[in-house]
Amino acid sequence: MGEGKDIVRVGLVGAGFIARLHTLAYRSVSAFYGDAVPRVELVRIADIAPGAAEAAATRLGWQDSTTDWREVTQAEDIDLVDIATPNDAHAEIAIDAARHAKAILCEKPLAATVGAAREMASVIEEARVTNQVGFVFRKWPAVELAKKLIEDGRLGDLLSFRGHYFHDYALDPEMPISWRMQRERAGAGALGDIGSHILDLAHYLVGNIDRVMARTTTLITERPTPSGGRAEVDVDDAADLLLDFDGGATGSIHVNWASAGYKTEIGFDLAGTRGALRFRWQHSNELEFYSCEDPTDIQGFRPVIIGPEHPKADIFWPVPGLGIGYSDGFVLSVSEILSALKTGRHAQPDFAHGLRISEVIDAALHSAETGAWQFVSPSPVGGQA
Amino acid sequence: MGEGKDIVRVGLVGAGFIARLHTLAYRSVSAFYGDAVPRVELVRIADIAPGAAEAAATRLGWQDSTTDWREVTQAEDIDLVDIATPNDAHAEIAIDAARHAKAILCEKPLAATVGAAREMASVIEEARVTNQVGFVFRKWPAVELAKKLIEDGRLGDLLSFRGHYFHDYALDPEMPISWRMQRERAGAGALGDIGSHILDLAHYLVGNIDRVMARTTTLITERPTPSGGRAEVDVDDAADLLLDFDGGATGSIHVNWASAGYKTEIGFDLAGTRGALRFRWQHSNELEFYSCEDPTDIQGFRPVIIGPEHPKADIFWPVPGLGIGYSDGFVLSVSEILSALKTGRHAQPDFAHGLRISEVIDAALHSAETGAWQFVSPSPVGGQA
Amino acid sequence: MGEGKDIVRVGLVGAGFIARLHTLAYRSVSAFYGDAVPRVELVRIADIAPGAAEAAATRLGWQDSTTDWREVTQAEDIDLVDIATPNDAHAEIAIDAARHAKAILCEKPLAATVGAAREMASVIEEARVTNQVGFVFRKWPAVELAKKLIEDGRLGDLLSFRGHYFHDYALDPEMPISWRMQRERAGAGALGDIGSHILDLAHYLVGNIDRVMARTTTLITERPTPSGGRAEVDVDDAADLLLDFDGGATGSIHVNWASAGYKTEIGFDLAGTRGALRFRWQHSNELEFYSCEDPTDIQGFRPVIIGPEHPKADIFWPVPGLGIGYSDGFVLSVSEILSALKTGRHAQPDFAHGLRISEVIDAALHSAETGAWQFVSPSPVGGQA
Amino acid sequence: MGEGKDIVRVGLVGAGFIARLHTLAYRSVSAFYGDAVPRVELVRIADIAPGAAEAAATRLGWQDSTTDWREVTQAEDIDLVDIATPNDAHAEIAIDAARHAKAILCEKPLAATVGAAREMASVIEEARVTNQVGFVFRKWPAVELAKKLIEDGRLGDLLSFRGHYFHDYALDPEMPISWRMQRERAGAGALGDIGSHILDLAHYLVGNIDRVMARTTTLITERPTPSGGRAEVDVDDAADLLLDFDGGATGSIHVNWASAGYKTEIGFDLAGTRGALRFRWQHSNELEFYSCEDPTDIQGFRPVIIGPEHPKADIFWPVPGLGIGYSDGFVLSVSEILSALKTGRHAQPDFAHGLRISEVIDAALHSAETGAWQFVSPSPVGGQA
Repeated sequence: MGEGKDIVRVGLVGAGFIARLHTLAYRSVSAFYGDAVPRVELVRIADIAPGAAEAAATRLGWQDSTTDWREVTQAEDIDLVDIATPNDAHAEIAIDAARHAKAILCEKPLAATVGAAREMASVIEEARVTNQVGFVFRKWPAVELAKKLIEDGRLGDLLSFRGHYFHDYALDPEMPISWRMQRERAGAGALGDIGSHILDLAHYLVGNIDRVMARTTTLITERPTPSGGRAEVDVDDAADLLLDFDGGATGSIHVNWASAGYKTEIGFDLAGTRGALRFRWQHSNELEFYSCEDPTDIQGFRPVIIGPEHPKADIFWPVPGLGIGYSDGFVLSVSEILSALKTGRHAQPDFAHGLRISEVIDAALHSAETGAWQFVSPSPVGGQA
Repeated sequence: MGEGKDIVRVGLVGAGFIARLHTLAYRSVSAFYGDAVPRVELVRIADIAPGAAEAAATRLGWQDSTTDWREVTQAEDIDLVDIATPNDAHAEIAIDAARHAKAILCEKPLAATVGAAREMASVIEEARVTNQVGFVFRKWPAVELAKKLIEDGRLGDLLSFRGHYFHDYALDPEMPISWRMQRERAGAGALGDIGSHILDLAHYLVGNIDRVMARTTTLITERPTPSGGRAEVDVDDAADLLLDFDGGATGSIHVNWASAGYKTEIGFDLAGTRGALRFRWQHSNELEFYSCEDPTDIQGFRPVIIGPEHPKADIFWPVPGLGIGYSDGFVLSVSEILSALKTGRHAQPDFAHGLRISEVIDAALHSAETGAWQFVSPSPVGGQA
Repeated sequence: MGEGKDIVRVGLVGAGFIARLHTLAYRSVSAFYGDAVPRVELVRIADIAPGAAEAAATRLGWQDSTTDWREVTQAEDIDLVDIATPNDAHAEIAIDAARHAKAILCEKPLAATVGAAREMASVIEEARVTNQVGFVFRKWPAVELAKKLIEDGRLGDLLSFRGHYFHDYALDPEMPISWRMQRERAGAGALGDIGSHILDLAHYLVGNIDRVMARTTTLITERPTPSGGRAEVDVDDAADLLLDFDGGATGSIHVNWASAGYKTEIGFDLAGTRGALRFRWQHSNELEFYSCEDPTDIQGFRPVIIGPEHPKADIFWPVPGLGIGYSDGFVLSVSEILSALKTGRHAQPDFAHGLRISEVIDAALHSAETGAWQFVSPSPVGGQA
Repeated sequence: MGEGKDIVRVGLVGAGFIARLHTLAYRSVSAFYGDAVPRVELVRIADIAPGAAEAAATRLGWQDSTTDWREVTQAEDIDLVDIATPNDAHAEIAIDAARHAKAILCEKPLAATVGAAREMASVIEEARVTNQVGFVFRKWPAVELAKKLIEDGRLGDLLSFRGHYFHDYALDPEMPISWRMQRERAGAGALGDIGSHILDLAHYLVGNIDRVMARTTTLITERPTPSGGRAEVDVDDAADLLLDFDGGATGSIHVNWASAGYKTEIGFDLAGTRGALRFRWQHSNELEFYSCEDPTDIQGFRPVIIGPEHPKADIFWPVPGLGIGYSDGFVLSVSEILSALKTGRHAQPDFAHGLRISEVIDAALHSAETGAWQFVSPSPVGGQA
């Protein structure tokens, strides 16, 4: 895969708000990592909407723009294809890029359907190209600190995980329908869009999900279309999942993008035999940690403020508590595949893992239909997560 | 039922820690309510453990004590029988008291089994005695404020309820088994003991529960007995429930008495079309309220600090924020049945409601066994809640 | 002083809202302490307002009532005189009680003027009667835990104390003037009424105050009188103090009873060489503790939830986190003088300490007038605090 | 001053951690502002430490580097001189840059001494060059929202401001001395370094400071030098200030860089006649707002989560609650002088304001020496803030 690249020429497909975040990350990554990442060249940005890529190129500093994504996936002058399109476009682009031996960073969820995800993972496996799915929250320092405390044994055996991701932007029934609310293009609603993030954290922190029980809910059943009509909503606004993990821990997940009062509230409560953790995105520069091993009369959930002594946070500022923001998470994310391209390391999380999350979502959708627990089908593709 | 009593002679069955809370409430209730409640006489306390009632009588100020609870339920000089025993003893005592025309305040949950609860509710219905189940949290001022804001329409239509009740005291595997951890005596574990409280809040705030999906978990499968042996634990340490309410709202409930870091953490998140509420017992003198009708740039979950302008809290102190404690909740609870006995009003929540909660718990236990949604069987007994 | 009393006959002067709190405490104290406190008889309540004492006696359960406080201070059948009147009445009542050899519990601040406080302390010293000033917050479990952690060395050397006490009830300019807002009767405004509490905590936790620099502010300079007129306000609504402690620590205190948004918010931040504490009354069942001795990557201000393992809290409930309320603080406070009367122990805080706080307030008032630091004059009376 | 520049050629003096933040801001500012700011060229970075500028140039993307800052201030190919050196170097560099007609962005505080600050402000006034002091916190969206709510009248008349800035990094007595702890180079200790930031916020939000009373404290009186020796510390580790504002509001400020448990905790409480605000950097993407005009029973300090509907935050992400970090503040800060250079607008805060803050610090240092209130001398230089 990665073979000691000192320069990586990037092509980006998609010119929306996520494209801006990715671009800023590519532009600043070497200021944080220096020689640990290759030098990045922003070669070409593509978007099918006429003018979108051109405008983004000017504003964000791409050398070239196009409305044809194949000028990215098939170009000689591109090493890394970054896919930031709607979910249903991921598969075709990624497969074409893999077949042209490009490294790939694909936004989450891997695909709109588990079938497409499976094909992508399979093609990438064959093509042996460096690949990564953009689950950005697991790179977040407070989450990495959680991972470290778990691995250090500070929680003992993990017993229960409760995760959530809430927004309120879809509470307004007059919010127009978009590709995110169409099953054909997005695969699922809140469960796929925001649920995939918290499922990724569950998997990252606790382990493989064995089976799932789900209820999905569509709160607003009809919405305006951009063209002035009305369209039925065929995806979930909310989903409530019970999970059983392979290792014996239990889990539950609640996602809802129409929950009054919440703004990007992703978080979790994780309890073990010796301690517990709490994370809330609203206070994203903290991780709350409770240790049963503190003296009995001074136990409590301490909010640890992230600083340079914490994993992943050392690349930022030398003073604890200055705080990082959402865009800094993308610096951490792109540094993963860039350093993989320099060192030959395997990038994480890879497409095989992205497929695993798609399988959980698929099992959850089936469970919601049948009203019964569904085992997550074992992925036919290897890989690490 | 109640017929204008100016004096109420109380007999209490059970002399444990809850008995102390009830006694303190009877002793101070007139200082808060004055003539709105009858004068209370603490006539007799009963406990089968030799010496327990006698010691409690001396310390707490009961006129008389006994080891035979029938000297309470059948006594001429008793108007109100207060039942604060293990769950499996509730039914026999309550039924005997009802047959002797006593008013009854019974601790929650109503009974160890839904069958016993059904019999209790039926006998009480026939006997037409004033009756109340001790779901103390619904009387709490912050919860009553939630109820009022819902009824005032400040949340719009209710969409979702997420409730929880966590402790960590059972996390220690060397904590000895007690009646609360024996299915025969308690009916269920955490689900019955602490779960009944949060189910009561769900019902009180949102409405009737139509069906339930549950997972129950026993984290510590064997515990020491007080006599030095080991006993198998046959009840749940944790339960995770999905609920559908009659009115269309969705619900979920998590209870766990072995969750590291939590101390009496009962709470809920309730969202509607126009606003949302949050309550956490850790900050029990606050209710967080979010209104979608605030100007867009100043919306947020405001912690409303309870004070004399709030329902139920007006009987306490004239200054907001002084704060009330757990024992004050019992003053609110006993005032309900006492004022019912003075005014003839119906006391709330009554046995019919207590039965309803037992039916939900029963449905949850069945769901956990079958892995499928269970409808809550319609109660054959009338009543309000 | 105390000489092994098994029964203490109490007389209470004042029948307002504080009187209700004291009465409830006397009525329930033995339920918490059992034989560790004497049995209490509620003999007589006095109030100069016609009818007030009589109404209170009926509602609260006093055997007798009077409009003449000398029927309390001079009565044969009274052992303990509890003074819950406006500040300017404390001195005459306390001095008369002392001369009749009564034990005395006097509400804070000790007196309206430092001169009156000095005379009270001097007379009590001569009379050698058991005496206590009602600084109720220092008895609060979270505060006692702070004291214990300091004494255990967990903060190292104390460096800085920042205290505050805020209300917003006086922000309304139409709030009528009362004795609390008249210099002649109250001595000072917010500084005396609520400031005395936080000064007591500063002294209790850190030590003797050596000198003080103050600014006082009257925000609302004129208020309605109950009789429909207008009166000038001659006391402070807010005071900001810098303190130097004997031991080298620095302090600052802010009090304000017209600070929008605050309801009974007393609290402090205390930092030492090895740790720090935070306390906020809004979350009064928690103490936040930070230890520099935790491993570097898991340091944080943990909110310790008060439970039976903490000092003073063991008398309440066997489950952590149930929580106590404002009235429970008075149980802790009256238990002090009651157990002193049983055991002969010295009650804390005593009048000599109450005088010390009055001297700090007096120095602060002088500093505010002169704009210069004022040393706190050394108290001519001995005593412990 | 600014005369419609479409390209701004920047030279940066200083290559430390602040230089990295400034550089990243220059590199990304057009991705946020597009044509509203000129295109930026990173021409030259200077640092007197051999190799430092060169290394920074490579890592951060500067075209050129030098050890002689005059190659920045006097260069033909530089439009804007950015000064990110120790405080005592600001004056000479800024004055030289002004004399060469460069626009200047100078880090805070303006200078090490009020004399130097006065000279700088005077020279800049004459030179009529675009100028700005880098008080970055006032550009922060939550602070700008505070400013807007004040200007909208939502707080009514301002009554009191309490500000703070705490760190704990200097609590370790073995932390080596640096220029920040030497009076000759820094002018003051915590008061100048972090105190200048919170004084700027006080001035920005409330208004001109009329007089000040201060206590300064040196907690660690001797520290190791980098060369292995020991040096006396001649600056404050902590300062406590009382302020009177021109408009009648009172203020207080506490700063301390050796306060156990605190990491970059800058914040304030601001109360008026109709509402109040709270800001804590630990939760920097929130502003707490309390309105006395909410219905009485639902008043509370709501944490408003910053999103695209708030001032300054609209340039970032389209979803509320994603959150920005410390480095994003510098984007906001540099955009000020860049857009000023494009539009001819006056940049804020300017050197005249920077001088005003230096004068307050100077008055505070005098007050700490004399123990008396000090009036802030009226600045001889005009300007806006």
